[in-house]
Amino acid sequence: MTPRVREILSWYGADNPGTLTNLARIMNHGRLAGTGKMVILPVDQGFEHGPARTFGMNPDGYDPAYHVQLAIESGCNAYAAPLGALEVVARDFAGEIPLILKINNSDTLYGDKRPISALTSYIDDALRLGCVGIGFTIYPGSGERKHMYEEIAEASRLAKQAGLVVVIWSYARGEQISKEGETAIDVISYAAHIAAQLGAHIIKVKPPSSHIEQPAAAKVYQEQGIKVATMADRIRHVVQACFAGKRIVIFSGGDSKTTDVLLKEVSELAQGGGFGSIMGRNAFQRPKAESIKLLQDVMDTFAGKK
Amino acid sequence: MTPRVREILSWYGADNPGTLTNLARIMNHGRLAGTGKMVILPVDQGFEHGPARTFGMNPDGYDPAYHVQLAIESGCNAYAAPLGALEVVARDFAGEIPLILKINNSDTLYGDKRPISALTSYIDDALRLGCVGIGFTIYPGSGERKHMYEEIAEASRLAKQAGLVVVIWSYARGEQISKEGETAIDVISYAAHIAAQLGAHIIKVKPPSSHIEQPAAAKVYQEQGIKVATMADRIRHVVQACFAGKRIVIFSGGDSKTTDVLLKEVSELAQGGGFGSIMGRNAFQRPKAESIKLLQDVMDTFAGKK
Amino acid sequence: MTPRVREILSWYGADNPGTLTNLARIMNHGRLAGTGKMVILPVDQGFEHGPARTFGMNPDGYDPAYHVQLAIESGCNAYAAPLGALEVVARDFAGEIPLILKINNSDTLYGDKRPISALTSYIDDALRLGCVGIGFTIYPGSGERKHMYEEIAEASRLAKQAGLVVVIWSYARGEQISKEGETAIDVISYAAHIAAQLGAHIIKVKPPSSHIEQPAAAKVYQEQGIKVATMADRIRHVVQACFAGKRIVIFSGGDSKTTDVLLKEVSELAQGGGFGSIMGRNAFQRPKAESIKLLQDVMDTFAGKK
Amino acid sequence: MTPRVREILSWYGADNPGTLTNLARIMNHGRLAGTGKMVILPVDQGFEHGPARTFGMNPDGYDPAYHVQLAIESGCNAYAAPLGALEVVARDFAGEIPLILKINNSDTLYGDKRPISALTSYIDDALRLGCVGIGFTIYPGSGERKHMYEEIAEASRLAKQAGLVVVIWSYARGEQISKEGETAIDVISYAAHIAAQLGAHIIKVKPPSSHIEQPAAAKVYQEQGIKVATMADRIRHVVQACFAGKRIVIFSGGDSKTTDVLLKEVSELAQGGGFGSIMGRNAFQRPKAESIKLLQDVMDTFAGKK
Amino acid sequence: MTPRVREILSWYGADNPGTLTNLARIMNHGRLAGTGKMVILPVDQGFEHGPARTFGMNPDGYDPAYHVQLAIESGCNAYAAPLGALEVVARDFAGEIPLILKINNSDTLYGDKRPISALTSYIDDALRLGCVGIGFTIYPGSGERKHMYEEIAEASRLAKQAGLVVVIWSYARGEQISKEGETAIDVISYAAHIAAQLGAHIIKVKPPSSHIEQPAAAKVYQEQGIKVATMADRIRHVVQACFAGKRIVIFSGGDSKTTDVLLKEVSELAQGGGFGSIMGRNAFQRPKAESIKLLQDVMDTFAGKK
Repeated sequence: MTPRVREILSWYGADNPGTLTNLARIMNHGRLAGTGKMVILPVDQGFEHGPARTFGMNPDGYDPAYHVQLAIESGCNAYAAPLGALEVVARDFAGEIPLILKINNSDTLYGDKRPISALTSYIDDALRLGCVGIGFTIYPGSGERKHMYEEIAEASRLAKQAGLVVVIWSYARGEQISKEGETAIDVISYAAHIAAQLGAHIIKVKPPSSHIEQPAAAKVYQEQGIKVATMADRIRHVVQACFAGKRIVIFSGGDSKTTDVLLKEVSELAQGGGFGSIMGRNAFQRPKAESIKLLQDVMDTFAGKK
Repeated sequence: MTPRVREILSWYGADNPGTLTNLARIMNHGRLAGTGKMVILPVDQGFEHGPARTFGMNPDGYDPAYHVQLAIESGCNAYAAPLGALEVVARDFAGEIPLILKINNSDTLYGDKRPISALTSYIDDALRLGCVGIGFTIYPGSGERKHMYEEIAEASRLAKQAGLVVVIWSYARGEQISKEGETAIDVISYAAHIAAQLGAHIIKVKPPSSHIEQPAAAKVYQEQGIKVATMADRIRHVVQACFAGKRIVIFSGGDSKTTDVLLKEVSELAQGGGFGSIMGRNAFQRPKAESIKLLQDVMDTFAGKK
Repeated sequence: MTPRVREILSWYGADNPGTLTNLARIMNHGRLAGTGKMVILPVDQGFEHGPARTFGMNPDGYDPAYHVQLAIESGCNAYAAPLGALEVVARDFAGEIPLILKINNSDTLYGDKRPISALTSYIDDALRLGCVGIGFTIYPGSGERKHMYEEIAEASRLAKQAGLVVVIWSYARGEQISKEGETAIDVISYAAHIAAQLGAHIIKVKPPSSHIEQPAAAKVYQEQGIKVATMADRIRHVVQACFAGKRIVIFSGGDSKTTDVLLKEVSELAQGGGFGSIMGRNAFQRPKAESIKLLQDVMDTFAGKK
Repeated sequence: MTPRVREILSWYGADNPGTLTNLARIMNHGRLAGTGKMVILPVDQGFEHGPARTFGMNPDGYDPAYHVQLAIESGCNAYAAPLGALEVVARDFAGEIPLILKINNSDTLYGDKRPISALTSYIDDALRLGCVGIGFTIYPGSGERKHMYEEIAEASRLAKQAGLVVVIWSYARGEQISKEGETAIDVISYAAHIAAQLGAHIIKVKPPSSHIEQPAAAKVYQEQGIKVATMADRIRHVVQACFAGKRIVIFSGGDSKTTDVLLKEVSELAQGGGFGSIMGRNAFQRPKAESIKLLQDVMDTFAGKK
Repeated sequence: MTPRVREILSWYGADNPGTLTNLARIMNHGRLAGTGKMVILPVDQGFEHGPARTFGMNPDGYDPAYHVQLAIESGCNAYAAPLGALEVVARDFAGEIPLILKINNSDTLYGDKRPISALTSYIDDALRLGCVGIGFTIYPGSGERKHMYEEIAEASRLAKQAGLVVVIWSYARGEQISKEGETAIDVISYAAHIAAQLGAHIIKVKPPSSHIEQPAAAKVYQEQGIKVATMADRIRHVVQACFAGKRIVIFSGGDSKTTDVLLKEVSELAQGGGFGSIMGRNAFQRPKAESIKLLQDVMDTFAGKK
């Protein structure tokens, strides 16, 4: 157990030893073991965008076993997926990598003005499949926010009792937020803060832009001279918004990008104090060797080796 | 126990021996026993379309005992029906054929823009009636999708704890899907994938057309050259979308058709790797001898004897 | 125990001996005991239409004791009423006649486009009051049909566990059904079939007219030459729609009618194979002697003595 | 135990001895003890109309202790109030007067077209505070009637199990009822009948006017010559509508009135067979001595001493 | 235990010794210990307004440890915060200051016409974190008031069983209340009264203005000559509206103000009989030494030392 991992665990004084054990399992697994940094492979895009749009460019990916192997071989800290995909692999890969059950999901066969995901699995499923934690998406800004916050509050309470880690994907969107505002620095840091207040152990947000969405916030950013010019500045701000850095905040890779663009962004995430990346499509849609190389480059960037 | 059945069971590593036993019972019953293929007789159309429209052309069908006998005599793998119909036959035919309780149903006395079926029975009913599994219809694309996915998530969790098999009927429909889009290849494979992610052991969809509904999907189908020209191509694609073929996918017969048309379609389903058919109206609306002949021809097609 | 009662009980092979016992109690009570026919006195119109409209023409009826006495003296098979009315009489008349607790009710102080009754009592109440069963109204065709079907599915499951009989009043109505359509032969037989599929032991519908409401159904009635010209034809068809006659189907008396009209209709119900009548206003709004005479004439008609 | 109290208890044959004991406690307490008549002091107007509008004219009333003392000193049968007000006094006045917990309440900071009160306390609270019963308001005629009837059905079932008395305040109102119709004789007697059918032990309605709201009812009142000309006639009719007088029906005082007007009305209530009054504002908004005098005059009127 | 604290405890005769112990803990902690007055530091504005708007002007505040230390060092009676923030500090500061878990929260990424907060934590969380009580916000005047009142009724019942203190933040707002009306004296005292009736031990409202919102109330204020000219008058009126002063009523600081304005207001609150302040932004947005000085000046004002 490295001093850094111990330090991070010390921020979670309210959790039981079961949850700390599972949080340590994530931090002590793979290429980034012991660094306090983490890269997680999430594969829920088949549900979110449809199978062809997700796996068509690399058909090996239709098989959930492909992804868990990719995560193991590249040295990811954990692999996250919905119920069905984990049910396929949980027995065959038992104990080989920490698993995170993504307990709510959306699809794109219906678009709603009040976005909210469906609860497709639960704490009991995470336990029977040997997972270390659950993942949950909230959409702050949605007219259904009360509904979602209460779903995760309840799931989180049960997860913590069962010694599981709670990972919240926090994506602001809704009728009163512009498209550009969804990644605005004030909105991203607000969404991250909400996830922290809801009791997340690990918070996942998108990398923020320098746009500021809410006028009341803009006033404060200007008056207080809060730095948001560079990505590193903004990451620092988002991490600060999560209890002054006492919660693990990781960033998604977003849309498909070229390797150079991606690694540059990751470099800025690391520079700003981000705890890691959660990278799906940008990894598994590439050929396997290429995606392993990419994931490891990302890990090495967070480890300060690049 | 044939090697093929063992192989199929091996895909369900997350399930308890109770569920595997019931899944094996389905695969080891009837004319297709041991082949890993299956034909199921479902009779819920009385509820869905009304009794006269369903049984008027063959009035013997008003009696649920007729159907269970038809399923037994033709050598179907299982018989599926709503609560009332199973209550009539469960004692008299106990142990003669695997039964699947269709736990949700719709009727056509009211049409809703946001389609969703009613939960008309539950896990306890399936157990007290000696069923091997439950059947559940979802309508991906409906404004009520969250509601439905959560109903089946909960029912599925309880069914699996009780050692039952979960069969999901996945029919995309809703305000943002065109009539043609309901059977589009991208939509059908998406609907099948959702059912797989929801934890279905057996997935039932309609045979897909070559139409592609969603622009974002069309782009990928074209760029990646995904083959959807023939029915066999499309079936292969749908099966692939269900965890690279690691879930049992069966296809419905749909509207009444001539025997020739039907058998041709079944031949393509089999050729594309479909695991079988679930055939209702096309079977029981014919005179009994004719329907037994048809069902057995279908079975023999899947068995590769035709 | 007559052979006919034994035969009827044999159709309910999924039920526990407790429910069969209570079903037998209904069939073995009163003037029609042992015939397999039944006449039930229901008094929920005070709730449904208001007390003055219901009891104003025979004020003795304000007292629930009047009705239970009427049912006993005339030799009805059972008496059905809402919670409050049964609470008044259950102790004083304990064991004198089978009681059915009507567990949901509507009133006419508010009219809704999406009709649904309120659950005003439950299984526990039926048990503590010594009832043999519960009664429940569904409105197929209502926008709230899912809600209702799930209420009765849950109530029915609990009732069957507790050895109670389930009686479903099935009245189609809603935004997509015309006034005339509410008693159309296709709609009535569909509504009866839904009740059967929902697991009812006894199904109550209105006597059907020869009107056919749904075009898709009309086509089948014509093509298949289904007979609906006479009331006896139609009753035969409705009974057939309930699992080929393997469920008890009884018919309501409807609006106040002259004795002659009423007895003629009952005669046709009996001729078509109806299992009996559930007759409220037409009975208790007449002076007592007259209503006893009428009820007994109805019974004798079903018994084939008239 | 007087013969009259015994007689009244005999109407509640479905209740357990616990509930009868508490009903007897109400009838055997205070100035009207043993008469079978009752006057209850209810103080929920602070919640319903706001504190200043309720207590501003007699500021002693801000203190809940004032009211319970007023009820004790004047000899009321019971004191009814919401949770907070009872929590203030329950220990200090334990055992001095029967308490009724008003478990639902509305306020006037928001007006709804579909009126419904909020459940602000429950059976457990009534038990821990030593209450003899619960009070509940329903609004027949509201679009939320199903919701309310089911709330009281559930609360009533639990209350009866716990040996508590159920008092229903039944006030018809809603989009399809005119302002005048809210106190129409047909509507009041219908509302009272609904409360009786819902299982109330004690029913509270407003004194009815001679207006008839519903055309279908008007026809019957006229045809059957139902007397509604005098208040005594109408009270007799309302009491009859509650199971021919086998349920306790009491009447509210309504808006502030002069003492003369009020006592005249009470005299008519008594003459028509009303079981008593539930009088709030008309009592506690007067100076204490005056309100005690008034309450006792009301009691003496019901006792036949005036 | 001072006589004043004993006196205050005596008003809570319905509570169990567990709750009284926790209420005493609040009153016996910090600079105001034993006076029966209290100042609470609440920090939920990060959730309510976003992190930058809340902590940007004093970035030390991003760390929840900063606030609990501020509360301890200044001698506050308690510290209140949402789940996440308390989870960060509960172990490290265990036993150093009474903690109140704010169990519902809103954010400003979506504005609703029918305001209601989300339940983000619950009784079990309060217990496992060592809290003395729970905090809950209601919005009387909202179309969701029934929903909120029922949430707090249920939470309050469980909290009281568990020996916790219930603090209700009562802020009237909604479609039928003007912006000015939200702090009108009639509305504030009504909102406070509702909180008292809902069973709150401690009630938090905003300092009221002399505006009167509701015409029906205005009439009474005028006729009865209720004094609302000075802040002290109004505070006296609000306290009276809470069971004649038998409930603890404290007042929020509201928007950022200069120290002079703030202390003048606090002086009036104290003069009018307010039990204390709950002061967030006005405290922690100042530099630490300045905020300690301010909080202690506020405390000394309530203690009568200023």
